[in-house]
Amino acid sequence: MPVIKARVTVTLKNGVLDPQGKAIEHALDGLGFGGVGSVRQGKVFDVEIDGADKAKAEADLNAMCEKLLANTVIENYSVTLI
Amino acid sequence: MPVIKARVTVTLKNGVLDPQGKAIEHALDGLGFGGVGSVRQGKVFDVEIDGADKAKAEADLNAMCEKLLANTVIENYSVTLI
Repeated sequence: MPVIKARVTVTLKNGVLDPQGKAIEHALDGLGFGGVGSVRQGKVFDVEIDGADKAKAEADLNAMCEKLLANTVIENYSVTLI
Repeated sequence: MPVIKARVTVTLKNGVLDPQGKAIEHALDGLGFGGVGSVRQGKVFDVEIDGADKAKAEADLNAMCEKLLANTVIENYSVTLI
């Protein structure tokens, strides 16, 4: 059966505080990496979907993001078929 | 001052168990999304670096991954300048 591979990237919206990103920023600074302006952390999901209908897969993936993968109040998501 | 934006993606290596991904897989199935073959979760970091030297920025980002952002025993990373 054919398989469609997709990558879903979920990132915090602008203006939403990201304490984890800030911690990484400071840790990088402490490790001697100067000039790091800002770090924002997000999530990535590599999803495999059975079937060959790319349009349906993309619609399904967007629905998955709305329902489960992203908190659309504070997060943006993007779906890329690979 | 010019700023270089980059996206670092950290994903689990093949063969490394991903219980979080499995949980998402089952949750998606429970929500009625049939045909989801596999889900693997990873991390993404959006980093801003001061300066205009893209080669240096890329070298720095790779070093950051080796030292802090990725656990290279179980994770792969990729750096993309935006």
